[in-house]
Amino acid sequence: MSRPPGRKQENHKISRELFVLTYGALVAQLCKDYEKDEDVNTCLDRMGYGIGVRLIDDFLAHSAVKKCRSYSETADMIAQVAFKMYLGVTPSVSCSSAAGNEFSLILDKNPLVDFVEELPAERASLCYCNVLCGVIRGALEMVHLAAEVTFLQDRLKGDAVTEIGITFLRKAEDRKHKRN
Amino acid sequence: MSRPPGRKQENHKISRELFVLTYGALVAQLCKDYEKDEDVNTCLDRMGYGIGVRLIDDFLAHSAVKKCRSYSETADMIAQVAFKMYLGVTPSVSCSSAAGNEFSLILDKNPLVDFVEELPAERASLCYCNVLCGVIRGALEMVHLAAEVTFLQDRLKGDAVTEIGITFLRKAEDRKHKRN
Repeated sequence: MSRPPGRKQENHKISRELFVLTYGALVAQLCKDYEKDEDVNTCLDRMGYGIGVRLIDDFLAHSAVKKCRSYSETADMIAQVAFKMYLGVTPSVSCSSAAGNEFSLILDKNPLVDFVEELPAERASLCYCNVLCGVIRGALEMVHLAAEVTFLQDRLKGDAVTEIGITFLRKAEDRKHKRN
Repeated sequence: MSRPPGRKQENHKISRELFVLTYGALVAQLCKDYEKDEDVNTCLDRMGYGIGVRLIDDFLAHSAVKKCRSYSETADMIAQVAFKMYLGVTPSVSCSSAAGNEFSLILDKNPLVDFVEELPAERASLCYCNVLCGVIRGALEMVHLAAEVTFLQDRLKGDAVTEIGITFLRKAEDRKHKRN
């Protein structure tokens, strides 16, 4: 994926609406495929992971960022550079643990739900944007950072904001512990 | 969907890569869901139709274009304004019938396949980008233009270029005739 930066950089911006509607079609298809919201959520997360694993190369190539030296820097980078670059929005970041490994990305505006008014009653547990969690998890894994990424709040579910929680897992044991 | 044009216009540009990878995940999911390529193609076209029906409002709001007075103008509009706006590329247009209702959009570069090297052997009949045909068909229908839209050539299938054929259907009878 080596590219001349100038013209290409410009070309590689597109209108968001086509993406948002295509994502909606993807979620709708998964809702047809899977009866349980949990299965749709898992599938979106898995798809996102696959996307994140590939997207990280693009991110590193185009963002020209330096290596982060702390979890805090990494969380800021995700919010201020990656979200801005890929979704055109910049979430605010807050650290939510004394240990310094848990962060929240707060989205006042979530472009992915531009055309979604509310979840249907029978899909109350759907994490509509769960692909984002997978993308973050996959991309972080490719820079050797294990993390758990989940939606903590969601405006689509009536919460005041949309909040994505990122917990950086320090060691393999931490991760195992978290899962059990 | 009324929006202040300035800041919003800027915000609503995003990086193409996330879209392209998400679209890839959608196609992969449909390939899991449907054994036959034809069924995947139909599903992509149907999804595209639903997207086009909604995208046309966005297009008319943001493009500030005037009403087209001929099929030829409409084809040029799709290529030079819509493709440019939504995919960042401008196909060339050629008229391929004496009757003046058949056009080809020729894509030297198809951004939707950025991460696709080739179709797997068992998916030789897959129209990977068939969503585009549906989008064009759906959007045209919303401005009262019936059309048949199909891929005529596809670089993913070894053709020299990617070519989308648009046949404007003049009357209900024409359409019925075409289908039979």
